[in-house]
Amino acid sequence: MADLEQTTTPDFSAADGLLPAIAQDAETGEVLMLAYMNAESFAETLATGRAVYYSRSRGRLWRKGEESGHVQEVQAVLVDCDADTILLKVRQIGDAACHEGYRSCFFRQIAPGDVKVVGERVFDPATVYGRGKTADERG
Amino acid sequence: MADLEQTTTPDFSAADGLLPAIAQDAETGEVLMLAYMNAESFAETLATGRAVYYSRSRGRLWRKGEESGHVQEVQAVLVDCDADTILLKVRQIGDAACHEGYRSCFFRQIAPGDVKVVGERVFDPATVYGRGKTADERG
Repeated sequence: MADLEQTTTPDFSAADGLLPAIAQDAETGEVLMLAYMNAESFAETLATGRAVYYSRSRGRLWRKGEESGHVQEVQAVLVDCDADTILLKVRQIGDAACHEGYRSCFFRQIAPGDVKVVGERVFDPATVYGRGKTADERG
Repeated sequence: MADLEQTTTPDFSAADGLLPAIAQDAETGEVLMLAYMNAESFAETLATGRAVYYSRSRGRLWRKGEESGHVQEVQAVLVDCDADTILLKVRQIGDAACHEGYRSCFFRQIAPGDVKVVGERVFDPATVYGRGKTADERG
């Protein structure tokens, strides 16, 4: 396994150069969100200690919190066995990672034929973001 | 937000019909792995209470643990705000989700110019899987 353990970077060579990146609350363990990174956003994340993703819809780097102020301070960066998924352990400023105002983007629990909101809403999106934007234009 | 809260299923219509699915230990909160699901694997997961993914390399359903016995009993299924990522809270049978024998696939921590193994190896892959297989052929 020496080869695996010495791999020092995710493999951005596949597909469109994007890899999924999970953000997890470093203190509580709550999974906050999943976004995508390219090599540039990964490098900036490592260098600055703040989560930087790549917005697929906007086609550019997305510095999380650039509009809302809800930045993510990165405490650890991990990569999975296949080097094709990234896990960030973060301190979420503003207590909410989700543009809908929930602590976590995973605020809905699904069962066969049923869905319920289980997440905690921390803020009202209308007070943080302007109206008339699509979900992916916030953050 | 009523529309969001009433969405009862992830949106598999985009791209290649696959969505990322995160498996998290329901008890400890540890993020164990990320794999992909199509609509069929998602439906089987909901119906059976065991995690079923879609193997991109094998091009077929991947019933996690089908070879190793390390199945994942699903305790909750959540979907994110954009309905394009799934989060499973699971009980991992065999104590290791990773085919490399670690509890979590995220066993390597990366810092600029450095990588270290931080995960706990629970089993030796050679004793669980036959040799001569690629990583993605295990599970």
